[in-house]
Amino acid sequence: MNCILLPVENFSANTAKINDLVQVDHVNNILDAKVGDTLKIGQLGGNLGTAVIEGIASDSIELRDVQLTITPPAKLDLTVVLALPRPKVLRRLIMDMTALGVRNIVLINSYRTQKSYWQSPMLARLDEFVLEGLQQGVDTIAPRIMLQKRFKPFVEDTFASLVTNRSIVAHPYGQQSFSEYRKIHSSVGLPSLVCIGAEGGWIDYEIALLAEQGCTPVHIGPRILRTEAAVNVILGQWLL
Amino acid sequence: MNCILLPVENFSANTAKINDLVQVDHVNNILDAKVGDTLKIGQLGGNLGTAVIEGIASDSIELRDVQLTITPPAKLDLTVVLALPRPKVLRRLIMDMTALGVRNIVLINSYRTQKSYWQSPMLARLDEFVLEGLQQGVDTIAPRIMLQKRFKPFVEDTFASLVTNRSIVAHPYGQQSFSEYRKIHSSVGLPSLVCIGAEGGWIDYEIALLAEQGCTPVHIGPRILRTEAAVNVILGQWLL
Repeated sequence: MNCILLPVENFSANTAKINDLVQVDHVNNILDAKVGDTLKIGQLGGNLGTAVIEGIASDSIELRDVQLTITPPAKLDLTVVLALPRPKVLRRLIMDMTALGVRNIVLINSYRTQKSYWQSPMLARLDEFVLEGLQQGVDTIAPRIMLQKRFKPFVEDTFASLVTNRSIVAHPYGQQSFSEYRKIHSSVGLPSLVCIGAEGGWIDYEIALLAEQGCTPVHIGPRILRTEAAVNVILGQWLL
Repeated sequence: MNCILLPVENFSANTAKINDLVQVDHVNNILDAKVGDTLKIGQLGGNLGTAVIEGIASDSIELRDVQLTITPPAKLDLTVVLALPRPKVLRRLIMDMTALGVRNIVLINSYRTQKSYWQSPMLARLDEFVLEGLQQGVDTIAPRIMLQKRFKPFVEDTFASLVTNRSIVAHPYGQQSFSEYRKIHSSVGLPSLVCIGAEGGWIDYEIALLAEQGCTPVHIGPRILRTEAAVNVILGQWLL
């Protein structure tokens, strides 16, 4: 937690209140902060800044001298279409994509997504993972997340409206490497849409359908990475 | 597991045997493979290739028609010096760095590494995590891993011999961004040594000591990433 994000209703003039127990615990036990200490805070959907601890109770912390003068970092001009991964890795993936600043996230079904993943209680906790990601990445603006349980209708309808001439799908058996793709498209910049498969990747049918809509299959070399690692490796191109 | 790696003693002429129970379980229950199916295999330290299943027992699998004709992907010309992370993330970090092809890994102490991390039973399991990483990344050559429990003696002695004129330390408060660094050093290529902190990063004293030995502090933008995400984002530059 590199900043503590509070909803707008927790602010009043230049004071604010922390009443989320995870945040209270973080301030007390991880930061080991005391009355008079300055905290890095932010307003969800607003600015970043600082505040001074006025009082600490077991379930809430009062803040004074709230200063919210720093605009959050720009969002990446990027939509990530991700095959719904195993619930266990969903939290870290949402956190990481949020911390990296992805603007839109679409979780879709794929052949290699097990049906049970869509019943996971983790799917009801996406807001929590987004908050963790924002507090990790020091940002205040949540990504927009869409869930799409049916691959074909989504790709043929909604997806078609998202695809630009800068859309790729990560595929170990793509003809072109991502770096070749970047060289060829250097005049238009980085892709605005990236599709990334779950463990085991996309099946040929899915690649064909995505390619038909205008996505270029690109590979990242002979090494096959865990979904989490692949997402960070690929999206790192937007930071570096 | 994108290939099954076996030690040299499990091979004999053009046959081989899988007797590691994790691998046997993977073939039986994840791949759901049958007698006559072809598996992607590799010899630890040797080549990659294929073999055909000859027989399946509860605790071992016999292979025939072993063909090991594919050389593993080249290792990255890279040493990663990583502050020993929380045991929970150590496994994934070692797996990912191995899958990415890092040649040398140095796990060192740092101010923000808790002493208890050095007592973790996970440290005795590094070979296991390396094997997982090789089988994930489809490689056969293990990285060399060094453990260095004392920061200052290591940095002043061993480290000095590792540092080249292409050495960086990731630091959110570095003056230069990684992309600026790359532009300035484009004629000599990517760094050969990268230092990455644990959660909370390096303290000023550590940065000063590393810089004194010739490491350039570089940042990757305003967003602060989990160690795992940062490692993949930074090392992704070597793949893409």
